[in-house]
Amino acid sequence: MSGGAAGAGCYNSESLTRATDARAGRRQRLLEALAELRCDAAVVSHLPNVRYLTGFTGSNGILFLSAERTVLFTDPRYELQAGEECDCRVRIVRGPTWDGVWRHAAGRRWRIALEAEHMSHAVWTETARRLGRNAPLKPLGGAVERLRKVKSPEEIGAIRASAKLCAAAFLQASRRFRAGMTENDAAAEIEYRMRKLGAEGAAFETIVAAGERAALPHARPGAARLEAGKPVLVDMGANLAGYMSDMTRVAHFGPPSREFARLYDAVLEAQQAALQVARAGVSASRVDKAARMALKARGLDRYFTHSTGHGVGLEIHEGPRLGAKSEDALEAGMVVTVEPGIYLSGKAGVRIEDTVLVTRTGAEILTSVSKGLLVLES
Amino acid sequence: MSGGAAGAGCYNSESLTRATDARAGRRQRLLEALAELRCDAAVVSHLPNVRYLTGFTGSNGILFLSAERTVLFTDPRYELQAGEECDCRVRIVRGPTWDGVWRHAAGRRWRIALEAEHMSHAVWTETARRLGRNAPLKPLGGAVERLRKVKSPEEIGAIRASAKLCAAAFLQASRRFRAGMTENDAAAEIEYRMRKLGAEGAAFETIVAAGERAALPHARPGAARLEAGKPVLVDMGANLAGYMSDMTRVAHFGPPSREFARLYDAVLEAQQAALQVARAGVSASRVDKAARMALKARGLDRYFTHSTGHGVGLEIHEGPRLGAKSEDALEAGMVVTVEPGIYLSGKAGVRIEDTVLVTRTGAEILTSVSKGLLVLES
Repeated sequence: MSGGAAGAGCYNSESLTRATDARAGRRQRLLEALAELRCDAAVVSHLPNVRYLTGFTGSNGILFLSAERTVLFTDPRYELQAGEECDCRVRIVRGPTWDGVWRHAAGRRWRIALEAEHMSHAVWTETARRLGRNAPLKPLGGAVERLRKVKSPEEIGAIRASAKLCAAAFLQASRRFRAGMTENDAAAEIEYRMRKLGAEGAAFETIVAAGERAALPHARPGAARLEAGKPVLVDMGANLAGYMSDMTRVAHFGPPSREFARLYDAVLEAQQAALQVARAGVSASRVDKAARMALKARGLDRYFTHSTGHGVGLEIHEGPRLGAKSEDALEAGMVVTVEPGIYLSGKAGVRIEDTVLVTRTGAEILTSVSKGLLVLES
Repeated sequence: MSGGAAGAGCYNSESLTRATDARAGRRQRLLEALAELRCDAAVVSHLPNVRYLTGFTGSNGILFLSAERTVLFTDPRYELQAGEECDCRVRIVRGPTWDGVWRHAAGRRWRIALEAEHMSHAVWTETARRLGRNAPLKPLGGAVERLRKVKSPEEIGAIRASAKLCAAAFLQASRRFRAGMTENDAAAEIEYRMRKLGAEGAAFETIVAAGERAALPHARPGAARLEAGKPVLVDMGANLAGYMSDMTRVAHFGPPSREFARLYDAVLEAQQAALQVARAGVSASRVDKAARMALKARGLDRYFTHSTGHGVGLEIHEGPRLGAKSEDALEAGMVVTVEPGIYLSGKAGVRIEDTVLVTRTGAEILTSVSKGLLVLES
């Protein structure tokens, strides 16, 4: 699906121009960050970052960026595609793509910053050998990831579409849930529906956890079966044209026990408390605290063993982090998950999660599936 | 699906013992490789390598290995699972998992080898700061990957099951192919069938390329439609209990043109030529050459633009490489793909691929789907 043709809708020339302008703006801001690092050039190799800065959606691309030039290096498979997608120069490299970058930069006196968190030590070492004679290489840090935290209107549109698709797939698939079905089959239904609705695939391995298996926050769908009189937890997301969504819902076969309903209500209350305080200007840790305090009021906070949320965009986990120790502050245009959960080992687990857009006045829910406990017929 | 429960069959205690023995043997051979590097210990962080050496299937684990001790470091989510899966000591680390490794090894005079190709420069640098005072860190190179090239009987059984599942899913899904269907929908069918047959998922992004789009070896399934009177290429594989399979078939809606049939036959002949020479003791480059020479006899070799195959196992691409420049020799127990193809830009593409087991006397095809051109009704 080169170029994000499927499901992304058609771009007219005006929106293409907007996208190109947005990318040029991002590159300009990266150059400013480079100046602060006292570097002349950046080499960006983490693919979501390359895509963010150039529009290139292929599986192999390295960006060289300086005030004078922006060059994407890729291999012959992507000659046509890179030319169509990128608003910068493209160099096709036969053989190892890094070799093209090294040849391009060799012998210059550039001080270069690279993504030390995203490139192997082996490649860094070879880069230093080829380019580092005149000046030591510098780590770029999370400079591009920092830019990515606040989404452009086009990105928000793309995530909105991804979240809408995710919600529709959940509704279609959950109608087919039956007691006796394996978790694996339920996950297969969900992923099938996402694909049929136009997704490139799942944003991450779909979680379907039957009964007490929901107490494992990392449960992988397996041979366990959905059971009459028990709950099932689904944590799912779509990858639509490169943009992710993330949602968790819990359904129950038949009416829940009073005990389970109490747990469910507690988590829902916690999620609503967090959503209530989320808006531009609020610290991310305060949102986390709101969820935690709501659970504390019910004596359940010690079962909430992870942080409240994370950013969503070109990657399923990105900045900002909504945790107790987060130093991020929410800004309008951030897209984050809000997903408190409680996990009673061997007994039960409940998590409720939405992908939401932070605005000046609040948080707009993008994964709009009802949060009343979904009661299914067995 | 912790512990590979789904689809992998049940292990009895005898096969568990065998698996444990196999892992201990692998670790012993890695220690011998370490001795050659003049190192006392290895830190293995590439997950397929960790799994190969310990049995651990979680998403976060780092192995410390020396003659005296074998310790797996992971996080609290995996406490139970790691204990069940691993035949070595397990240390649960709260906070960054690498931190546990650093604390474990700090202050000792161990010379340590690490996977420089698989760890970020940022982590390597921090490791050197914490541990490298007494002796510089060394790159482990592909020591574990070299062991992984030849599969154990248990691994061969797992890949055999994965290939069988892949073949069954292809047959089920291709029955539903109709002219007018999008590539994306056909890929959804295939992945759905794999999941329903027990796969953890696809081994890689399923390729469905309609008509002349098969001329792009990296085509991603998109909104293009399968058409009456035209071919469709499917490249697919399953991940079953961690082991991969890989297969490509071409189908045609209605009888093919003489021209297309000629292309198809040429590729089939090339694949059979390669399969004919593949056996233990033969160089991997000779298998590549056999395919290339068969195409040359038809004047088509210049359209065969990639190498003939690659190893398959815990990863979809691993050693050995079956290419013109490969220095590998085939050994009994290797599992590789044999996949010649020709690509006529804008016109047509054909690739035929099997996953095969190398034996003393030949190559056993594991993806047993007929290779006569599959003619479908539109």
